[in-house]
Amino acid sequence: MLKLFYASGTCALASHIALAEAGAVYEAVRLNFRADEQRKPEYLAINPKARVPALVTDRGVLTETPAILAFVAQSFPAAQLAPLQDPFAFARVQAFNSYLCATVHVAHAHRVRGYRWVDDPAAIAAMRLKVPETVGECFTLIEREFFEAPWVMGQAYSICDPYLFTLAQWLEGDGVDPARFPKIRAHHSRMLARAAVKQALAEELH
Amino acid sequence: MLKLFYASGTCALASHIALAEAGAVYEAVRLNFRADEQRKPEYLAINPKARVPALVTDRGVLTETPAILAFVAQSFPAAQLAPLQDPFAFARVQAFNSYLCATVHVAHAHRVRGYRWVDDPAAIAAMRLKVPETVGECFTLIEREFFEAPWVMGQAYSICDPYLFTLAQWLEGDGVDPARFPKIRAHHSRMLARAAVKQALAEELH
Repeated sequence: MLKLFYASGTCALASHIALAEAGAVYEAVRLNFRADEQRKPEYLAINPKARVPALVTDRGVLTETPAILAFVAQSFPAAQLAPLQDPFAFARVQAFNSYLCATVHVAHAHRVRGYRWVDDPAAIAAMRLKVPETVGECFTLIEREFFEAPWVMGQAYSICDPYLFTLAQWLEGDGVDPARFPKIRAHHSRMLARAAVKQALAEELH
Repeated sequence: MLKLFYASGTCALASHIALAEAGAVYEAVRLNFRADEQRKPEYLAINPKARVPALVTDRGVLTETPAILAFVAQSFPAAQLAPLQDPFAFARVQAFNSYLCATVHVAHAHRVRGYRWVDDPAAIAAMRLKVPETVGECFTLIEREFFEAPWVMGQAYSICDPYLFTLAQWLEGDGVDPARFPKIRAHHSRMLARAAVKQALAEELH
Protein backbone atom coordinates (compact mmCIF):
# COMPACT_ATOMS: atom_id res chain seq x y z
CA MET A 1 0.00 0.00 0.00
CA LEU A 2 1.17 3.54 -0.71
CA LYS A 3 2.17 5.52 2.37
CA LEU A 4 2.36 9.30 2.22
CA PHE A 5 4.38 11.16 4.82
CA TYR A 6 3.08 14.68 5.30
CA ALA A 7 3.08 17.49 7.83
CA SER A 8 0.24 19.89 8.54
CA GLY A 9 0.18 23.07 6.49
CA THR A 10 2.81 21.90 3.99
CA CYS A 11 2.89 21.32 0.25
CA ALA A 12 2.38 17.59 0.92
CA LEU A 13 -1.34 18.36 0.80
CA ALA A 14 -1.10 18.50 -3.00
CA SER A 15 0.09 14.88 -3.20
CA HIS A 16 -2.49 13.89 -0.60
CA ILE A 17 -5.33 15.35 -2.67
CA ALA A 18 -3.98 13.74 -5.84
CA LEU A 19 -3.96 10.31 -4.18
CA ALA A 20 -7.56 10.85 -3.11
CA GLU A 21 -8.53 12.02 -6.62
CA ALA A 22 -6.89 8.92 -8.07
CA GLY A 23 -8.92 6.62 -5.87
CA ALA A 24 -5.65 5.17 -4.55
CA VAL A 25 -5.46 3.00 -1.47
CA TYR A 26 -3.04 4.87 0.75
CA GLU A 27 -2.13 5.63 4.31
CA ALA A 28 -1.35 9.24 5.27
CA VAL A 29 1.26 9.45 8.04
CA ARG A 30 1.65 12.76 9.83
CA LEU A 31 5.05 14.08 10.89
CA ASN A 32 5.18 16.66 13.65
CA PHE A 33 7.50 19.39 12.36
CA ARG A 34 7.33 21.22 15.72
CA ALA A 35 8.90 18.15 17.31
CA ASP A 36 11.41 18.02 14.42
CA GLU A 37 10.28 14.50 13.53
CA GLN A 38 11.51 15.04 9.98
CA ARG A 39 15.09 15.07 11.28
CA LYS A 40 14.85 11.86 13.32
CA PRO A 41 16.89 8.89 12.07
CA GLU A 42 13.76 6.83 11.32
CA TYR A 43 12.53 9.45 8.89
CA LEU A 44 15.94 10.33 7.45
CA ALA A 45 16.17 6.65 6.44
CA ILE A 46 13.03 7.26 4.37
CA ASN A 47 13.88 10.74 3.09
CA PRO A 48 17.42 11.99 3.75
CA LYS A 49 16.32 15.47 2.65
CA ALA A 50 14.29 15.77 5.89
CA ARG A 51 11.34 17.15 3.97
CA VAL A 52 7.82 16.21 3.05
CA PRO A 53 6.17 14.83 1.03
CA ALA A 54 7.64 11.36 0.77
CA LEU A 55 5.64 8.61 -0.88
CA VAL A 56 6.61 5.07 0.07
CA THR A 57 5.77 2.61 -2.69
CA ASP A 58 6.43 -1.12 -2.96
CA ARG A 59 9.44 -0.27 -5.15
CA GLY A 60 10.96 2.46 -3.03
CA VAL A 61 10.49 6.02 -1.86
CA LEU A 62 9.59 8.98 -4.07
CA THR A 63 10.06 12.60 -3.10
CA GLU A 64 9.45 16.05 -4.66
CA THR A 65 5.88 17.16 -5.26
CA PRO A 66 6.04 17.47 -9.08
CA ALA A 67 7.48 13.95 -9.35
CA ILE A 68 4.92 12.43 -6.96
CA LEU A 69 2.03 14.16 -8.72
CA ALA A 70 3.10 12.86 -12.14
CA PHE A 71 3.64 9.40 -10.64
CA VAL A 72 0.10 9.36 -9.26
CA ALA A 73 -1.29 10.49 -12.62
CA GLN A 74 0.67 7.80 -14.49
CA SER A 75 -0.08 5.04 -11.98
CA PHE A 76 -3.82 5.69 -12.00
CA PRO A 77 -4.53 6.59 -15.64
CA ALA A 78 -8.26 5.98 -15.27
CA ALA A 79 -8.45 9.06 -13.04
CA GLN A 80 -7.26 11.21 -15.98
CA LEU A 81 -5.17 13.54 -13.86
CA ALA A 82 -2.76 14.50 -16.67
CA PRO A 83 -2.63 14.40 -20.50
CA LEU A 84 -0.41 11.32 -20.47
CA GLN A 85 -0.56 10.59 -24.21
CA ASP A 86 0.49 14.07 -25.33
CA PRO A 87 4.12 15.06 -24.55
CA PHE A 88 3.50 18.76 -25.20
CA ALA A 89 0.38 18.98 -23.02
CA PHE A 90 2.10 16.89 -20.32
CA ALA A 91 5.09 19.26 -20.44
CA ARG A 92 2.78 22.22 -19.89
CA VAL A 93 1.41 20.50 -16.79
CA GLN A 94 4.95 19.84 -15.61
CA ALA A 95 6.11 23.38 -16.36
CA PHE A 96 3.27 24.77 -14.25
CA ASN A 97 4.07 22.45 -11.35
CA SER A 98 7.80 23.13 -11.64
CA TYR A 99 7.11 26.88 -11.42
CA LEU A 100 5.04 26.30 -8.27
CA CYS A 101 7.82 24.18 -6.78
CA ALA A 102 10.94 26.14 -7.67
CA THR A 103 9.66 29.74 -7.75
CA VAL A 104 6.33 30.16 -5.92
CA HIS A 105 7.01 27.81 -3.00
CA VAL A 106 10.57 29.15 -2.73
CA ALA A 107 9.31 32.75 -2.58
CA HIS A 108 6.91 31.76 0.22
CA ALA A 109 9.61 29.85 2.10
CA HIS A 110 11.58 33.06 2.57
CA ARG A 111 8.97 34.12 5.12
CA VAL A 112 8.94 30.99 7.24
CA ARG A 113 12.21 29.21 6.51
CA GLY A 114 14.67 31.98 5.74
CA TYR A 115 17.24 30.22 7.94
CA ARG A 116 17.77 27.83 5.05
CA TRP A 117 19.62 30.50 3.09
CA VAL A 118 21.09 32.92 5.65
CA ASP A 119 22.28 32.88 9.26
CA ASP A 120 22.09 36.56 10.21
CA PRO A 121 18.75 37.26 12.03
CA ALA A 122 18.60 40.76 10.54
CA ALA A 123 18.85 39.29 7.05
CA ILE A 124 16.12 36.76 7.85
CA ALA A 125 13.90 39.65 8.92
CA ALA A 126 14.81 41.58 5.76
CA MET A 127 13.83 38.58 3.64
CA ARG A 128 10.38 38.49 5.22
CA LEU A 129 9.74 42.07 4.12
CA LYS A 130 9.94 41.16 0.44
CA VAL A 131 7.68 38.07 0.56
CA PRO A 132 4.40 39.95 -0.11
CA GLU A 133 6.01 41.41 -3.25
CA THR A 134 7.61 38.21 -4.59
CA VAL A 135 4.65 35.94 -3.83
CA GLY A 136 2.27 38.59 -5.17
CA GLU A 137 4.24 38.76 -8.43
CA CYS A 138 4.11 34.98 -8.85
CA PHE A 139 0.34 34.84 -8.42
CA THR A 140 -0.12 37.87 -10.69
CA LEU A 141 1.71 35.96 -13.41
CA ILE A 142 -0.32 32.81 -12.79
CA GLU A 143 -3.62 34.71 -12.82
CA ARG A 144 -2.73 36.62 -15.99
CA GLU A 145 -0.73 34.11 -18.03
CA PHE A 146 -1.01 30.52 -16.91
CA PHE A 147 -4.45 29.91 -15.46
CA GLU A 148 -7.19 28.75 -17.83
CA ALA A 149 -10.57 28.47 -16.19
CA PRO A 150 -12.24 26.52 -14.78
CA TRP A 151 -9.12 24.44 -13.99
CA VAL A 152 -5.49 25.39 -14.34
CA MET A 153 -5.21 23.65 -17.71
CA GLY A 154 -8.70 24.60 -18.88
CA GLN A 155 -11.55 22.11 -19.12
CA ALA A 156 -9.55 19.17 -17.82
CA TYR A 157 -8.84 18.88 -14.10
CA SER A 158 -5.21 17.86 -13.59
CA ILE A 159 -2.40 17.44 -11.06
CA CYS A 160 -1.83 21.21 -11.38
CA ASP A 161 -5.05 21.92 -9.50
CA PRO A 162 -4.31 20.44 -6.07
CA TYR A 163 -0.84 22.01 -6.17
CA LEU A 164 -2.13 25.51 -6.96
CA PHE A 165 -4.86 25.07 -4.35
CA THR A 166 -2.28 24.12 -1.73
CA LEU A 167 0.05 27.06 -2.33
CA ALA A 168 -2.82 29.54 -2.68
CA GLN A 169 -3.80 28.71 0.90
CA TRP A 170 -0.65 30.52 2.02
CA LEU A 171 -1.43 33.87 0.36
CA GLU A 172 -2.93 35.65 3.35
CA GLY A 173 -0.17 34.46 5.67
CA ASP A 174 2.31 35.81 3.14
CA GLY A 175 0.67 39.24 3.28
CA VAL A 176 -0.98 38.99 -0.13
CA ASP A 177 -4.70 39.69 -0.52
CA PRO A 178 -6.28 36.73 -2.41
CA ALA A 179 -8.95 39.12 -3.73
CA ARG A 180 -6.31 40.42 -6.18
CA PHE A 181 -6.65 37.12 -8.05
CA PRO A 182 -10.33 36.50 -8.83
CA LYS A 183 -9.70 33.48 -11.07
CA ILE A 184 -7.47 31.75 -8.54
CA ARG A 185 -9.92 32.61 -5.78
CA ALA A 186 -12.84 31.07 -7.69
CA HIS A 187 -10.64 28.03 -8.35
CA HIS A 188 -10.07 27.73 -4.62
CA SER A 189 -13.82 27.57 -3.93
CA ARG A 190 -14.25 25.08 -6.77
CA MET A 191 -11.55 22.89 -5.25
CA LEU A 192 -13.12 23.03 -1.77
CA ALA A 193 -16.30 21.53 -3.24
CA ARG A 194 -14.52 18.39 -4.50
CA ALA A 195 -14.88 15.18 -2.51
CA ALA A 196 -11.16 14.36 -2.76
CA VAL A 197 -10.18 17.75 -1.38
CA LYS A 198 -12.62 17.38 1.51
CA GLN A 199 -11.27 13.88 2.18
CA ALA A 200 -7.60 14.96 2.24
CA LEU A 201 -8.30 18.02 4.39
CA ALA A 202 -10.33 15.93 6.84
CA GLU A 203 -7.58 13.32 7.07
CA GLU A 204 -4.98 16.00 7.81
CA LEU A 205 -7.18 17.53 10.52
CA HIS A 206 -8.24 14.28 12.20
CA MET B 1 11.86 23.56 -35.85
CA LEU B 2 12.52 23.69 -32.12
CA LYS B 3 14.08 26.92 -30.93
CA LEU B 4 15.84 27.04 -27.56
CA PHE B 5 16.41 30.40 -25.89
CA TYR B 6 19.41 30.26 -23.57
CA ALA B 7 21.94 32.56 -21.93
CA SER B 8 25.60 31.80 -21.29
CA GLY B 9 26.39 30.13 -18.00
CA THR B 10 22.78 29.33 -17.14
CA CYS B 11 20.84 26.14 -16.49
CA ALA B 12 19.57 26.30 -20.08
CA LEU B 13 22.69 24.30 -20.98
CA ALA B 14 20.96 21.17 -19.61
CA SER B 15 18.13 21.47 -22.15
CA HIS B 16 20.64 22.33 -24.86
CA ILE B 17 22.62 19.13 -24.21
CA ALA B 18 19.43 17.07 -24.06
CA LEU B 19 18.36 18.36 -27.49
CA ALA B 20 21.76 17.43 -28.88
CA GLU B 21 21.60 13.98 -27.24
CA ALA B 22 18.16 13.45 -28.74
CA GLY B 23 19.42 14.21 -32.23
CA ALA B 24 16.78 16.94 -32.48
CA VAL B 25 16.84 19.58 -35.17
CA TYR B 26 16.94 22.82 -33.21
CA GLU B 27 18.16 26.37 -33.23
CA ALA B 28 19.86 27.73 -30.11
CA VAL B 29 19.22 31.45 -29.64
CA ARG B 30 21.40 33.33 -27.16
CA LEU B 31 19.99 36.05 -24.93
CA ASN B 32 22.41 38.57 -23.47
CA PHE B 33 21.54 38.78 -19.77
CA ARG B 34 24.03 41.65 -19.27
CA ALA B 35 21.96 43.69 -21.71
CA ASP B 36 18.79 42.52 -19.89
CA GLU B 37 17.45 41.03 -23.12
CA GLN B 38 15.32 38.65 -21.09
CA ARG B 39 13.22 41.61 -19.93
CA LYS B 40 12.61 43.07 -23.37
CA PRO B 41 9.03 42.97 -24.69
CA GLU B 42 9.97 40.61 -27.55
CA TYR B 43 11.20 38.00 -25.09
CA LEU B 44 8.51 38.57 -22.47
CA ALA B 45 6.02 37.69 -25.21
CA ILE B 46 7.78 34.31 -25.42
CA ASN B 47 8.41 33.81 -21.70
CA PRO B 48 6.69 36.26 -19.34
CA LYS B 49 8.84 34.90 -16.50
CA ALA B 50 11.90 36.63 -18.07
CA ARG B 51 13.98 33.50 -17.56
CA VAL B 52 15.72 30.86 -19.60
CA PRO B 53 15.37 28.21 -20.87
CA ALA B 54 12.37 28.62 -23.13
CA LEU B 55 11.74 26.07 -25.84
CA VAL B 56 9.59 27.24 -28.72
CA THR B 57 7.76 24.34 -30.37
CA ASP B 58 5.24 24.29 -33.19
CA ARG B 59 2.51 24.00 -30.54
CA GLY B 60 3.70 26.73 -28.20
CA VAL B 61 6.37 27.64 -25.70
CA LEU B 62 7.63 25.41 -22.90
CA THR B 63 9.58 26.63 -19.88
CA GLU B 64 11.17 25.12 -16.75
CA THR B 65 14.14 22.79 -17.13
CA PRO B 66 12.55 19.63 -15.66
CA ALA B 67 9.54 20.00 -17.97
CA ILE B 68 11.66 20.66 -21.07
CA LEU B 69 13.96 17.72 -20.29
CA ALA B 70 11.04 15.30 -19.93
CA PHE B 71 9.49 16.72 -23.11
CA VAL B 72 12.69 16.07 -25.06
CA ALA B 73 12.86 12.53 -23.68
CA GLN B 74 9.23 11.83 -24.58
CA SER B 75 9.43 13.49 -28.01
CA PHE B 76 12.55 11.54 -29.05
CA PRO B 77 11.97 8.12 -27.48
CA ALA B 78 14.59 6.47 -29.69
CA ALA B 79 17.28 8.40 -27.81
CA GLN B 80 16.25 6.60 -24.59
CA LEU B 81 16.81 9.59 -22.36
CA ALA B 82 14.32 8.48 -19.67
CA PRO B 83 12.54 5.27 -18.57
CA LEU B 84 9.32 6.31 -20.26
CA GLN B 85 7.47 3.01 -19.81
CA ASP B 86 8.01 2.74 -16.06
CA PRO B 87 6.15 5.31 -13.91
CA PHE B 88 8.26 4.61 -10.82
CA ALA B 89 11.61 4.86 -12.60
CA PHE B 90 10.40 7.95 -14.46
CA ALA B 91 9.34 9.51 -11.14
CA ARG B 92 12.83 8.92 -9.75
CA VAL B 93 14.28 10.78 -12.73
CA GLN B 94 11.82 13.58 -12.15
CA ALA B 95 12.47 13.69 -8.41
CA PHE B 96 16.19 14.08 -9.05
CA ASN B 97 15.62 16.88 -11.55
CA SER B 98 13.08 18.59 -9.29
CA TYR B 99 15.62 18.59 -6.47
CA LEU B 100 18.21 20.18 -8.76
CA CYS B 101 15.67 22.79 -9.85
CA ALA B 102 13.99 23.73 -6.58
CA THR B 103 16.77 23.15 -4.03
CA VAL B 104 20.24 23.02 -5.62
CA HIS B 105 19.77 25.76 -8.22
CA VAL B 106 17.92 27.88 -5.65
CA ALA B 107 20.78 27.52 -3.15
CA HIS B 108 23.24 28.62 -5.85
CA ALA B 109 21.05 31.55 -6.89
CA HIS B 110 21.44 33.10 -3.44
CA ARG B 111 25.00 33.98 -4.40
CA VAL B 112 24.31 35.66 -7.72
CA ARG B 113 20.65 36.64 -7.64
CA GLY B 114 19.93 37.37 -4.00
CA TYR B 115 18.03 40.51 -5.06
CA ARG B 116 15.19 38.22 -6.03
CA TRP B 117 14.36 37.62 -2.37
CA VAL B 118 15.60 40.64 -0.45
CA ASP B 119 16.22 44.35 -1.04
CA ASP B 120 18.68 45.21 1.74
CA PRO B 121 22.28 45.07 0.38
CA ALA B 122 23.59 43.87 3.75
CA ALA B 123 21.16 40.94 3.64
CA ILE B 124 22.22 40.12 0.06
CA ALA B 125 25.81 40.00 1.28
CA ALA B 126 24.79 37.84 4.26
CA MET B 127 23.08 35.41 1.89
CA ARG B 128 26.26 34.97 -0.10
CA LEU B 129 28.13 33.85 3.01
CA LYS B 130 25.94 30.77 3.43
CA VAL B 131 26.08 29.57 -0.20
CA PRO B 132 29.19 27.37 0.20
CA GLU B 133 27.42 25.58 3.07
CA THR B 134 24.01 25.15 1.40
CA VAL B 135 25.35 24.17 -2.02
CA GLY B 136 27.92 21.90 -0.36
CA GLU B 137 25.15 20.13 1.59
CA CYS B 138 23.13 19.57 -1.57
CA PHE B 139 26.04 17.98 -3.42
CA THR B 140 26.99 15.92 -0.35
CA LEU B 141 23.49 14.45 -0.40
CA ILE B 142 23.63 13.81 -4.15
CA GLU B 143 27.04 12.16 -3.91
CA ARG B 144 26.02 9.99 -0.95
CA GLU B 145 22.37 9.16 -1.64
CA PHE B 146 21.20 9.84 -5.16
CA PHE B 147 24.06 9.28 -7.58
CA GLU B 148 24.48 5.77 -9.00
CA ALA B 149 27.55 5.42 -11.17
CA PRO B 150 28.37 5.66 -13.96
CA TRP B 151 25.32 7.86 -14.67
CA VAL B 152 22.96 9.50 -12.20
CA MET B 153 20.42 6.70 -12.57
CA GLY B 154 23.02 3.92 -12.89
CA GLN B 155 23.73 2.14 -16.15
CA ALA B 156 21.28 4.18 -18.20
CA TYR B 157 22.20 7.70 -19.27
CA SER B 158 19.18 9.98 -18.75
CA ILE B 159 17.95 13.56 -18.66
CA CYS B 160 19.35 13.75 -15.11
CA ASP B 161 22.91 13.71 -16.44
CA PRO B 162 23.04 16.96 -18.41
CA TYR B 163 21.23 18.74 -15.57
CA LEU B 164 23.66 17.55 -12.89
CA PHE B 165 26.59 18.35 -15.20
CA THR B 166 25.29 21.89 -15.70
CA LEU B 167 24.80 22.71 -12.01
CA ALA B 168 28.08 21.01 -11.00
CA GLN B 169 29.90 23.54 -13.20
CA TRP B 170 28.98 26.20 -10.65
CA LEU B 171 30.58 24.52 -7.62
CA GLU B 172 33.88 26.37 -7.61
CA GLY B 173 32.22 29.74 -8.16
CA ASP B 174 29.98 28.92 -5.20
CA GLY B 175 33.04 28.32 -3.01
CA VAL B 176 32.69 24.54 -2.89
CA ASP B 177 35.64 22.31 -3.77
CA PRO B 178 34.50 19.77 -6.41
CA ALA B 179 37.14 17.35 -5.08
CA ARG B 180 34.81 16.68 -2.13
CA PHE B 181 32.57 14.76 -4.54
CA PRO B 182 34.64 12.17 -6.41
CA LYS B 183 31.66 10.45 -8.05
CA ILE B 184 30.19 13.70 -9.33
CA ARG B 185 33.64 14.81 -10.47
CA ALA B 186 34.19 11.61 -12.46
CA HIS B 187 30.72 12.07 -13.92
CA HIS B 188 31.72 15.53 -15.04
CA SER B 189 34.70 14.17 -16.99
CA ARG B 190 32.54 11.42 -18.45
CA MET B 191 30.05 14.04 -19.64
CA LEU B 192 32.76 16.20 -21.22
CA ALA B 193 33.71 13.24 -23.42
CA ARG B 194 30.23 12.96 -24.96
CA ALA B 195 29.69 14.33 -28.45
CA ALA B 196 26.39 16.00 -27.49
CA VAL B 197 28.01 17.84 -24.59
CA LYS B 198 30.84 19.04 -26.81
CA GLN B 199 28.33 20.16 -29.42
CA ALA B 200 26.19 22.14 -26.98
CA LEU B 201 29.19 23.76 -25.29
CA ALA B 202 30.66 24.70 -28.66
CA GLU B 203 27.37 26.22 -29.80
CA GLU B 204 27.13 28.31 -26.63
CA LEU B 205 30.71 29.56 -27.05
CA HIS B 206 30.55 30.27 -30.78
